[in-house]
Parts: sequence; structure tokens; C-alpha cells
Amino acid sequence: SSPLSNSIQSGYKVHPLSFEQRLSLIRNKVGRRLLEIMLKKQSNLAVAADVTTSEELLSIANEVGPQICILKTHMDIIQDWTESVSEKLVHLAKLHHFLIFEDRKFADIGNTVELQLTGGIFHIAQWADIVNAHIIAGPGTIQALSRSAEHCGILLLAQMSSKGNLAVQEYTQKALEFAQQYEDAVFGFISLGCIGDPNFLYFTPGVKLEGGGDSLGQQYTDPKTVIAIQGSDVAIVGRGIIQSSNRREAASTYRKACWDAYLQRLEEYVE
Amino acid sequence: SSPLSNSIQSGYKVHPLSFEQRLSLIRNKVGRRLLEIMLKKQSNLAVAADVTTSEELLSIANEVGPQICILKTHMDIIQDWTESVSEKLVHLAKLHHFLIFEDRKFADIGNTVELQLTGGIFHIAQWADIVNAHIIAGPGTIQALSRSAEHCGILLLAQMSSKGNLAVQEYTQKALEFAQQYEDAVFGFISLGCIGDPNFLYFTPGVKLEGGGDSLGQQYTDPKTVIAIQGSDVAIVGRGIIQSSNRREAASTYRKACWDAYLQRLEEYVE
Repeated sequence: SSPLSNSIQSGYKVHPLSFEQRLSLIRNKVGRRLLEIMLKKQSNLAVAADVTTSEELLSIANEVGPQICILKTHMDIIQDWTESVSEKLVHLAKLHHFLIFEDRKFADIGNTVELQLTGGIFHIAQWADIVNAHIIAGPGTIQALSRSAEHCGILLLAQMSSKGNLAVQEYTQKALEFAQQYEDAVFGFISLGCIGDPNFLYFTPGVKLEGGGDSLGQQYTDPKTVIAIQGSDVAIVGRGIIQSSNRREAASTYRKACWDAYLQRLEEYVE
Repeated sequence: SSPLSNSIQSGYKVHPLSFEQRLSLIRNKVGRRLLEIMLKKQSNLAVAADVTTSEELLSIANEVGPQICILKTHMDIIQDWTESVSEKLVHLAKLHHFLIFEDRKFADIGNTVELQLTGGIFHIAQWADIVNAHIIAGPGTIQALSRSAEHCGILLLAQMSSKGNLAVQEYTQKALEFAQQYEDAVFGFISLGCIGDPNFLYFTPGVKLEGGGDSLGQQYTDPKTVIAIQGSDVAIVGRGIIQSSNRREAASTYRKACWDAYLQRLEEYVE
């Protein structure tokens, strides 16, 4: 048995399937579109554009766009947000072939998240391809998100990277159950790695080539650990690229490191 | 032993202390200010202004203002939000003596929630007296919120009212531990009732005189059950008042029902 066949941290089994093989397993359309982009660009890199001005957000999207499969946004931290910002972002997403993932972490009852997804001034459903949700409020959250924006793929938060977080054990298991129950809408998880079911994609934040942490409990892991060992599919890189003096080059380095880690995972199963 | 001495649903003990007695127990300034307002107005009623236009939001604030201790907002569902909406709301809060509680349910790592609280276009910290947070991401969430806006009191989500929610047992207990650890910043909980510690205030959503539910998993409980039996301190009423043809009258009816339920809880301990 391969040393990579089990995730170190979670104890979940990492499956042996390639992205090509999983294209036929993913039920949600956005999930399949993402896999196609990943295969075409040989990129399983998502960039977290955690910046506070629209100028920076759009320039990051343009700089790292060719290297990424997903740009992750927090629209509610952009100080000069207007509707034209999301329009320009959609334009760049089409130009560079990436999907937009609004990291809203919906965490309320159904009636409220429906309004938060479709309404307000952000109209998230109009420009986001992917949104995520906590499962804490129960299945009503997922039901409401999926019925109010069928064209948005949903990721559930099954595990988190921050210190002392409570998304562990039975909670993680519950996220998997909810996803399996709403497989048409949910195509993956925010998690530390694979949590066992190849019918879903796994997205891991807090990835940095150097590892380390910040003063508010964030903990970093390197691409190889996250993708080759823990079995995650897409690495979400924030400060490692955003704070680089050359973001294009950093994105290119990270893309290669993340894709190589994916190939390494596949190889472990060939022998 | 009184029939009201234990909460039916949670098994937590309801304490015998009055709001006057608890003034000296609450460490957070906003929590004490709220208690003073509650005692002065004889109101433990919060109204959830879950509406989608600024005109409705402000007219609700003006109509129910004299009856409430808190107006609960979701700024991100207001379709025509501008900075002047929050300015007008602050004006009405001063006029009618209530606090503004932005129900943002922060649920991210510290670095992100700090930006979400203080930045973006909403600048929540500039106009909200109270904000709430999920504990799922760990203590970094609370640390970041408290250090970036000392004048905002924090409520933690310890239990929820929606069907199949996961804020139960150990999770609820963890919320209590986190609150006790950050007592200067956290002064209460979103919960189904008292979860055992009189040093905190308890806020319960999903309150409606008629009970019932909605199609997306929300479940309603009446004021007497929530306050007299389950030991909650503040009832959060949404659709029961918002959808009434006479909101002033409905708010007055609810204020009396909620305050009477509080007095009934006190009486049970006198005998």
C-alpha cells in the first residue's frame, strides 16, 4: 500500500482517480466545467484575491488569470465596489478562462441566504460561478441556495485551516452526508484534503510554499502536502501570490507546484 | 423545584436573576447599555427587519422603534443600500433608544472577518452596536472582531432555530467556553434559551405568537416558551411583526407578551 493512500491529518482515504476519470462522476455542471478548465490549463490553482480595492482585485485577476482555474473573491471587503467591478471581473474570467468563486460562507437559515445570494447590492448569483456555505444552520441553507441560483455550484465547508476550528470529525462527516444528499447542487468541499468520496472535488485554503501562519490563527500548508498527501484537488493560495512582488511569476510557480503534486499523487497509484 | 427551573429543549438550568441583578454581571459595555435600555423601556423585544428596500427598513425602524430594545438588520439584502441608509438608521436608533444589531454571522478566519467588519462598502463597525459570529472557524474570529471594533458587542451563535441545524451539544458548550474566554467582548448568545451562565444574555430568533414554520426549515416558538420556560432574555421577532398590517400595534403586543413572559419567569422563583 502506498504511503500516500491515507491522509495524514484526517485519516480519510485518498482515492486513485484522475481528473479525467472524475469528469463522469461529478453531477453538478459547474463542477464539470471546472474540471475541463483544469485539464485544459493544467491548473489546479485557485488564487484568493483578498484585497480591498477594485483596482487591485482586477489587476490581480488579469495578472494571475492565465495560470488559475479559479479566482476566489470577498466582494464585501472591496471598499469601492460598484456593479461595474463584477462586470469587469466576469470579462476577465471569460478572457483568461477561469471561474469566479465568491467566498461568502453563507451560514444562515434558508430564507435569509436566498436573499443574500440573489439580492442586496452585490447580486452574487449574477456573477459568481461558485459559492460556499457552512452547514451549521442545517440543510435549509443548501436547499435555498440551490433553488435560487441553479447556475451556481456550491462548495460546503467540511474542514477549515484556522487554529482551534470546530469543523472536525462528526461535523465533517455531516458535510459529506449533506453533499451526497444534494449532489446536483454541491460539487465539492472546502477541506484539508480528500474526505473520501471521489464524486466531489476538494479545495484547500491556507496553501503557501513556505508554510507558517499569521497572528490571527491562520495556518499554512505547502502544495505537496495538501495535494499529493492529503488528496486535495485544488489549492487556494492567497498571500503567497498576492503579496509577491511579481504575481505573474509567483502564480506560474504555484501552478506548476500544484499540478506536479497532483501528478505525483496519480503516480503513487500506478506502481 | 419550579416547573420552569429547567429548559425543556436544552436541559440547561434557567437562573433566577433579574435584569437589574445582571447589570453588575455583564462585563461588556454594550451589554450593560442594552440592559439599561431594556429596563427603561420594559422591552426585551428585538425586531428582525428582514426587508429588501431602505424605505421599508427605515419605516420599520420608525414604526417599531418605541417598543424595541434592538433592531436586527441584514444590510446585505437591502437592494438600494447607500451610506446614508445606515446614517438614517443610527439617527432613528438615537431617537427611539434602541441598539442596532447587524446579523452578519461572521464565520471566517480572523484576517477576513476583520476586513468584513471594518471595511468594504458597509463599514459595519461604524454603525452597528452589536454583531454576531459563528464559532466554527475557531477563536481567531472573536479575537479579530474584538480587536478591530472594541465598541461593538459580540454575540456568539450557540444554538439555532432552523431544522436539522448542527449547533447542538458539544458545539453549544464550546460557544459558552469561547464566550467565557472573551468576556470583555462577548456579552451573549444566539440560542434557544438560557444555556446556563447568567453572566451572558440570551437572544432567541424565530419567535412568533402563533408558532409554526416556513418552507425552508425555519421553526417558530412563542414568547412564553422562549422566555419564561427556556430562559431566553430577548425575543427576536421577524415575520410576526414585519408582515403585520399594523406594525406599531403588533410590536406593542409582542413587547408586552415578551416582558410578561420575563416577569413570569422571575415570579416562579419568588414562591
